[in-house]
Amino acid sequence: MAATRYDVVIIGGGPAGLSAGIYAARSRLSTLMIEKEIIGGNIVNAEVVENYPGFPDGVGGYDLTQWMHKQATKFGMETLTAEVTGLTVDGGAKTVKTSEGDFAAGAVIIAGGSTRQKLGVPGEKELTGRGVSYCATCDAAFFVDKPVAVVGGGNAAVYEALHIAKFASSVAVIHRRNELRATKIVQERAFAEPKIRFVWNSTVQSIEGTDKVRDVRLKDVVTGQESVMTVDGIFVSIGFKPNTDYLRGILNISPEGYVVVNDRMETGVPGIYAAGDIRSNSIRQVISACGDGATAAVYADRYLGEKK
Amino acid sequence: MAATRYDVVIIGGGPAGLSAGIYAARSRLSTLMIEKEIIGGNIVNAEVVENYPGFPDGVGGYDLTQWMHKQATKFGMETLTAEVTGLTVDGGAKTVKTSEGDFAAGAVIIAGGSTRQKLGVPGEKELTGRGVSYCATCDAAFFVDKPVAVVGGGNAAVYEALHIAKFASSVAVIHRRNELRATKIVQERAFAEPKIRFVWNSTVQSIEGTDKVRDVRLKDVVTGQESVMTVDGIFVSIGFKPNTDYLRGILNISPEGYVVVNDRMETGVPGIYAAGDIRSNSIRQVISACGDGATAAVYADRYLGEKK
Repeated sequence: MAATRYDVVIIGGGPAGLSAGIYAARSRLSTLMIEKEIIGGNIVNAEVVENYPGFPDGVGGYDLTQWMHKQATKFGMETLTAEVTGLTVDGGAKTVKTSEGDFAAGAVIIAGGSTRQKLGVPGEKELTGRGVSYCATCDAAFFVDKPVAVVGGGNAAVYEALHIAKFASSVAVIHRRNELRATKIVQERAFAEPKIRFVWNSTVQSIEGTDKVRDVRLKDVVTGQESVMTVDGIFVSIGFKPNTDYLRGILNISPEGYVVVNDRMETGVPGIYAAGDIRSNSIRQVISACGDGATAAVYADRYLGEKK
Repeated sequence: MAATRYDVVIIGGGPAGLSAGIYAARSRLSTLMIEKEIIGGNIVNAEVVENYPGFPDGVGGYDLTQWMHKQATKFGMETLTAEVTGLTVDGGAKTVKTSEGDFAAGAVIIAGGSTRQKLGVPGEKELTGRGVSYCATCDAAFFVDKPVAVVGGGNAAVYEALHIAKFASSVAVIHRRNELRATKIVQERAFAEPKIRFVWNSTVQSIEGTDKVRDVRLKDVVTGQESVMTVDGIFVSIGFKPNTDYLRGILNISPEGYVVVNDRMETGVPGIYAAGDIRSNSIRQVISACGDGATAAVYADRYLGEKK
């Protein structure tokens, strides 16, 4: 049986996918967005998004993405709850394989986001959005003159610490090793920042607090000694996992697992685009993900126009 | 006298500049946005923006950009009304020269947009937003089952005609020559579209109508004969002029005059970024301009953090 065909199939229902859907559907392309979990992506848990342009008093992450979904649906986008299991490209023909069947696509926009690596300790899940954060650009401004911890030792963690130091009273960088993996110049800058201190050879055992983070329980991995640090916020920066395993061998994937694109969001395979957190060099913000999605959809429209 | 110094100077007060301002100022960078005319850019004249994600019932272009300006100002961005006359780069030191004096900058975000070429005929200005449009992606959806004209013969004009043909009852492409400048494949697609017809060797003399476009007066440049065509909309697609003359010799400028950037909005000169319509391959949409601006500001923040 032939697979159902759409002009555009969008993989992922976060801001990038929703914005791509608004643009594709409004361009009268038949458009299917496939999301395996919740419409809106990671941002749905954000109580207030302060930096999405157009909302001077902030906007809830859930509301914002629901409105985007309503907007895309109004223009004719269809939504399917399914898990994407594969993508095949045979000449110009593209097929998206899912748990709910196969879909033929004129163009494919990959907007599957990335999964934030969790610590997996007690209190982390319960206190997410209540002091536990995975994004300094998003949330550092909420911790003015408060003590904050950052977990991690790579470039991202040290950039986050430098950013947070502009707001917080102090930043403790908790790292399980006794040296950073961050590049030299970034390290030096962090060492020179008086607000930042380093807690070496340490792991987080649990995050404590009732309605908000109160403190974090640490363990010295060398001595085995446990200790408690009082903080208002804890930023977890131990990496992201973009969901691109099924794309290897089809698209150009960076060593970190992101889809490499150019400034048109083109992947190099004609008719396949990537947008949002899953693409190389994304800043992981709602506004940039939406910009990417719109760009991908406009170039997909042109691609389909030329092919017809 | 030493020039006043800011961490970030943003050239241009449209959506790209405003979004950059929100991100830079919220990152506690001292931020100055310089605009020579009206805050908000070209979009302020749009009565309804239907495709900015987050507003399912549409939003006025003026309101949307005013809110963005309020948001950026709330985070500490300063605004200056002045014309930028030059940019000098001396090692890491950057100076933005303006009609109101010089400003030293740690980083510069160029978001000066592009000027839409006008026909310069009677009725054009008065009926802009009332049937006269410069953007098919923005406005084609407002002309369902209506007769529409497109003026121009380049790739952009033919792409616009193809896009509009999905909505309009008919599309007349008015071109002053007897052949298109558009690339072959795009031409062929347009010739094959039954809704599109070509009006060769013709120029627009005037656009007529009281509160909205009623018809367009044409002149055959070979015979000199005048004629009247009844349309509900006229899309002018005769080119854009990005304001980049003062950047030649400093930045990589494309043959069409746009600032060439990568997917981080970096221009190639460390600490100088471009965002929005002025950069290469922009889709000229509010959402993508805002995404660009945010991306530029986040990478500017990192650049300044490393330099300190």
